[in-house]
Amino acid sequence: MCFTETAELMGLNVRVLAILLLLGFIYVFYIGASTSPIIVFVFSVCIVSFLLSIYLTKWVLSKDEGPPEMVQISEAIRDGAEGFFRTQYGTISKMALLLALVILSIYLFRNTTPQQESSGLGRETSACITVAAFLLGALCSGVAGYVGMWVSVRANVRVSSAARRSAREALQIAVRAGGFSALVVVGMAVIGIAILYAAFYVWLGVDSPGSMKVTDLPLLLVGYGFGASFVALFAQLGGGIFTKAADVGADLVGKVEQGIPEDDPRNPAVIADLVGDNVGDCAARGADLFESIAAEIISAMILGGTMAQRCKIEDPSGFILFPLVVHSFDLVVSSIGILSIRGTRDSSVKVPLEDPMAILQKGYSVTIVLAVLTFAGSTRWLLYTEQAPSAWLNFSLCGLVGIITAYVFVWITKYYTDYKHEPVRTLALSSSTGHGTNIIAGVSLGLESTALPVIVISISIISAFWLGRTSGLVDETGSPTGGLFGTAVATMGMLSTAAYILTMDMFGPIADNAGGIVEMSQQPESVREITDVLDAVGNTTKATTKGFAIGSAALASFLLFSAYMDEVSSFAHESFKQVDIAIPEVFIGGLLGAMLIFLFSAWACAAVGRTAQEVVKEVRRQFIERPGIMDYKEKPDYGRCVAIVASASLREMIKPGALAIVSPIVVGFLFRVLGHNTGHPLLGAKVVAALLMFATVSGILMALFLNTAGGAWDNAKKYIETGALGGKGSDCHKAAVTGDTVGDPFKDTAGPSLHVLIKMLATITLVMAPVFL
Amino acid sequence: MCFTETAELMGLNVRVLAILLLLGFIYVFYIGASTSPIIVFVFSVCIVSFLLSIYLTKWVLSKDEGPPEMVQISEAIRDGAEGFFRTQYGTISKMALLLALVILSIYLFRNTTPQQESSGLGRETSACITVAAFLLGALCSGVAGYVGMWVSVRANVRVSSAARRSAREALQIAVRAGGFSALVVVGMAVIGIAILYAAFYVWLGVDSPGSMKVTDLPLLLVGYGFGASFVALFAQLGGGIFTKAADVGADLVGKVEQGIPEDDPRNPAVIADLVGDNVGDCAARGADLFESIAAEIISAMILGGTMAQRCKIEDPSGFILFPLVVHSFDLVVSSIGILSIRGTRDSSVKVPLEDPMAILQKGYSVTIVLAVLTFAGSTRWLLYTEQAPSAWLNFSLCGLVGIITAYVFVWITKYYTDYKHEPVRTLALSSSTGHGTNIIAGVSLGLESTALPVIVISISIISAFWLGRTSGLVDETGSPTGGLFGTAVATMGMLSTAAYILTMDMFGPIADNAGGIVEMSQQPESVREITDVLDAVGNTTKATTKGFAIGSAALASFLLFSAYMDEVSSFAHESFKQVDIAIPEVFIGGLLGAMLIFLFSAWACAAVGRTAQEVVKEVRRQFIERPGIMDYKEKPDYGRCVAIVASASLREMIKPGALAIVSPIVVGFLFRVLGHNTGHPLLGAKVVAALLMFATVSGILMALFLNTAGGAWDNAKKYIETGALGGKGSDCHKAAVTGDTVGDPFKDTAGPSLHVLIKMLATITLVMAPVFL
Repeated sequence: MCFTETAELMGLNVRVLAILLLLGFIYVFYIGASTSPIIVFVFSVCIVSFLLSIYLTKWVLSKDEGPPEMVQISEAIRDGAEGFFRTQYGTISKMALLLALVILSIYLFRNTTPQQESSGLGRETSACITVAAFLLGALCSGVAGYVGMWVSVRANVRVSSAARRSAREALQIAVRAGGFSALVVVGMAVIGIAILYAAFYVWLGVDSPGSMKVTDLPLLLVGYGFGASFVALFAQLGGGIFTKAADVGADLVGKVEQGIPEDDPRNPAVIADLVGDNVGDCAARGADLFESIAAEIISAMILGGTMAQRCKIEDPSGFILFPLVVHSFDLVVSSIGILSIRGTRDSSVKVPLEDPMAILQKGYSVTIVLAVLTFAGSTRWLLYTEQAPSAWLNFSLCGLVGIITAYVFVWITKYYTDYKHEPVRTLALSSSTGHGTNIIAGVSLGLESTALPVIVISISIISAFWLGRTSGLVDETGSPTGGLFGTAVATMGMLSTAAYILTMDMFGPIADNAGGIVEMSQQPESVREITDVLDAVGNTTKATTKGFAIGSAALASFLLFSAYMDEVSSFAHESFKQVDIAIPEVFIGGLLGAMLIFLFSAWACAAVGRTAQEVVKEVRRQFIERPGIMDYKEKPDYGRCVAIVASASLREMIKPGALAIVSPIVVGFLFRVLGHNTGHPLLGAKVVAALLMFATVSGILMALFLNTAGGAWDNAKKYIETGALGGKGSDCHKAAVTGDTVGDPFKDTAGPSLHVLIKMLATITLVMAPVFL
Repeated sequence: MCFTETAELMGLNVRVLAILLLLGFIYVFYIGASTSPIIVFVFSVCIVSFLLSIYLTKWVLSKDEGPPEMVQISEAIRDGAEGFFRTQYGTISKMALLLALVILSIYLFRNTTPQQESSGLGRETSACITVAAFLLGALCSGVAGYVGMWVSVRANVRVSSAARRSAREALQIAVRAGGFSALVVVGMAVIGIAILYAAFYVWLGVDSPGSMKVTDLPLLLVGYGFGASFVALFAQLGGGIFTKAADVGADLVGKVEQGIPEDDPRNPAVIADLVGDNVGDCAARGADLFESIAAEIISAMILGGTMAQRCKIEDPSGFILFPLVVHSFDLVVSSIGILSIRGTRDSSVKVPLEDPMAILQKGYSVTIVLAVLTFAGSTRWLLYTEQAPSAWLNFSLCGLVGIITAYVFVWITKYYTDYKHEPVRTLALSSSTGHGTNIIAGVSLGLESTALPVIVISISIISAFWLGRTSGLVDETGSPTGGLFGTAVATMGMLSTAAYILTMDMFGPIADNAGGIVEMSQQPESVREITDVLDAVGNTTKATTKGFAIGSAALASFLLFSAYMDEVSSFAHESFKQVDIAIPEVFIGGLLGAMLIFLFSAWACAAVGRTAQEVVKEVRRQFIERPGIMDYKEKPDYGRCVAIVASASLREMIKPGALAIVSPIVVGFLFRVLGHNTGHPLLGAKVVAALLMFATVSGILMALFLNTAGGAWDNAKKYIETGALGGKGSDCHKAAVTGDTVGDPFKDTAGPSLHVLIKMLATITLVMAPVFL
């Protein structure tokens, strides 16, 4: 409901929205100002970037939508996407409300200590706080998804239209449209947490005598992260099933059986496929990155608070609010990067096609250089303490470790998925001996590609931990304590250019859609060439974003896990420092956690397979019942395909989603009961910790496998389509198409859902901790 | 070298071998008698089963080899298999000798305490003991592999010949041939350990004042387990690559390109394929089950010793030798099961074909009923102690848990891989929409099939642990200690019918080969029908054995892991009870362990893909250069294909094998150095423990996935070949063949190698523990 309201507002008048936002912010600013000057800084940066994002939308919307045939197709896509979004988020919001009730009742019936009561954190308060944070997180995540889709269904047709004039202009529109949603997504994650922080600070009278300490405040924010990842999980699952079922179904009948090209207007499933790009890639990725950033900010804040408390740092707010500042600077430097990509002065003159990847890379270089500088500045500003005067330097280096890790991850992903390099060429070659060898080679490639990232992550965690430990920060007993915070800072470093990365990612589906509109409206070959190049670049940026996302998830995994242990300690009033897998029950928790990943991936892939089969049947039926379609004499019924995919994906997203949410709770509860009966009070919490860690490790590996194998298959096919090994239509190409089909659910449904799943498991265990104790 | 000697002896005269064995055993008996009456019992049972196995061979060899065309083919297979075996084991024995030197030098340079020296366990002694055990284990494993292959290359042609007369007789020959190698493999594992135990007992003067205690003795046997798993790993890798590369290569050109049936004599790769069944399935599975049984016996003995010591049980030998007795009874009850399968009285009369599966099942029922009875008897005999008079009852129940787990595992495997049930039918149906949907469905099916086994294993571990804990056995402080031993007993229970299971497994490749010989010698359709039925049954038994093998590995994983912790404690003279994954380095060890499984699987599958491509090229070349092959005018050059596959698989087995052996040592050593520099003395050992556990968990899941997906694809194809969904030659069938091809390296190369890998990691860490400290 809120989404549609927001949508109407945005659709009606952007100015009105801006004024409303400004009014709201005045109150928020007032609260922020009474908390910390850092919060005021964060607020200001976010507001500036919202203003900038409004400028970007206006700029994009001012572009022409091209001839009526384009507008018509674009409207069909928009209607399909918005229709699905409405139904999907209707279902999700009902589930979210139900879960909110569950959380409320759990928190209302848990035990509290008199201490907690006196510090203003009684049962009712903490229940309300957690539920409010959860709902706000869910709402913001939904808005983030909506924003991603809202702009992409409007930008796609403008990019197609611009492609008729100039490649550079088309590129610029796609980048600015992507930039708009990236700024909104990151800005919303930051400002949401900042508002919650400031509000809780003021309402609970933090740091006044007898009430709670500011270092405990971040623990109250976990509900926000859970809300965000809850919505993101279903958004990614539903969207991922939608987009790939439509894609696979359209290809199987269109390309393979009827021999018509991709995005041909005669294919009844083509609009469903284009709608899928928007709901699967734009909306889902928006929600995905929103929850990534939110979850990682919150866990870094928790660790910062814990460390500041242990080291008795006088003003801990710098350590706690550091992640928010890093992301504020992220907004600033990414905006500069986005704006550095300019169109040619006179868009009516056709210039020769430059390599769009080089242009995007140049913008990224600008962003990354600025990010290193601002990151060092932020560490000096916030992490300087007289107890350890050089600690900030060590933490700067941790940030650098994170930035380098991001860079290496992107490079590894490219090595394994780009056909310029050997792996994909070998994969293409293996297609020449048939479908079977192509699949074997692709699976091997995917499994192998997990090795380097794991080694890189291992080195980063150890070096960031070591840099943190040697920072000079010590606790009361004199032992070094900064290790974990070091890995947190490295994660922040990795994410310090998140907005630019997200821009590049959003660029992909917009370019893909533009290509589809150009093809469907039967534009001349030269226009199609331009959108083809943009589409190919979009494929690469999409693959690298996935590498980036899983890399940050891997780096953050240890963080989230530590936050969970802090949370349990604070709930149980008992030290919880060890997860000993030599205890059989704990080991079994791990086994179940790893199994959860396998089962989740199975169900996600199977859902795509089943839905695709429904599409195949419908498309075959239409071709038989309306023989005129193939001669352009009859119009296919696009709407039916959209409706079939939409209802199937809504149905299919429930099972894997429910598995992810229910199983940690059930396992934790069962072992809590078992532990209670056998005299192990913390057994439930320990088993869940093992479940979380084994699931994280397996999830990272499985996601790397699925994403890379899928990307490599896709590009092996593209490589053959460039004319290698027999080119389009050869037996070799047919085998490569099979690989591509298999790779689709791998890389766009199961893989990205696993990114979200890993973080959702961490946040759900954080929020549900009282159940296990 | 020893292998060929043994071979010649066996080939020349079985009686001479029997006499030699008897002479050797007289001395061994003498040593055994001075150790414990239990050892004498074990020796006697082993000797009786060796005698029985000699009877079985003689019976099999007395059958006729059929017409000359069959003999000719059989000889080609035998030559190919023995040639490959010789080269392969030549390479393996060189590597084993090299590794023995490494172990020797590690043990010679490690630190010992004066205590150890005085108890006769100085550097030199323990180095010699470990190396001797390693070499004996390696030798026995090699012999086990050889025996499996020796009988199968002789039985195959006799089964084909018998199939011309009666199905029942053919079945009986295959079962008895399988029974021969099963009895030898299990008997050798048991007697090898018993001899080592007795020899060390006598030589080290165990239990006399000032020397070591009998409860520490099992720790000296770990070298035997490592030797066995070292050889098994390479046997499985080399054999697995050989068999599947030949199979995939033969199918891709023969079935898909030329449209000739499987095992057609015109296919140049057909002999290589048949050789592969022997070296891959028979030899490798023999070595595999040998090392499984050896590793599990040894770890159960270690745990039994530790527990007996903690509980101050007067005569601990019952607890230590329990696993040997269980396997002695296994030999007895399985022999009865094997002999219960009889031919018809008059083999010249053709009887109507019964369902061979039902006959095998009946034999299994006999075996399992007897196993339950003898298991309960053994617990009463050996595990009765006055300290806890009802403990043996609890342990009997643990055994029952193991037996039930085995049964449920076999059932789950059948459910997911048999086309009588829904999963395979759905998979077959998904082939009707193309190659892509078939692969997606198969992958999902495989991933999903991991869930039930994991839940079953979790329940078994917890219930066996609980039964053990409540057995009444307590340590000095009065806390219950029998938990771990309970899981050990459950593992023993699961393996208490191992010899019969191995018989059923060996039956598969023999029947498969017999079918190939029948096809190649162009026998009438009625004969082919009989071998086809036997082959189909063999497929099912092979799949269920894999379920059984991975189930026992999963149940034993926790056992092996505990044994490792005991070993480290004993080496480090420091308590080592916790593996805390909340320590970053330990967590990274886990991450690397899980990655190891992914990388190993990748390399194993890729090796098959690459070698298959070489076969495809060679077969294509022969068809072009000798156009007469297709009209039976020219004979294809079978030998070249065998040579190509042989040399390629020897080359390809090195990389994954070396990875498995080197990486735990490198990781352990690196973190030992890191720990030394940062003041964590046990860091290396802890990181390796985490590596071991995460690798075990991922390995179990990955192996379940690979085995089940492969089996299901195979049977989905077979289901379509029965005429369903269009039958042979339809598009649906082609898609199913692609799935089958992909499944081949999954289920016969990577999957079974992972079983061995899991146990090899456990034994290598046991033996290499001094490196990490």
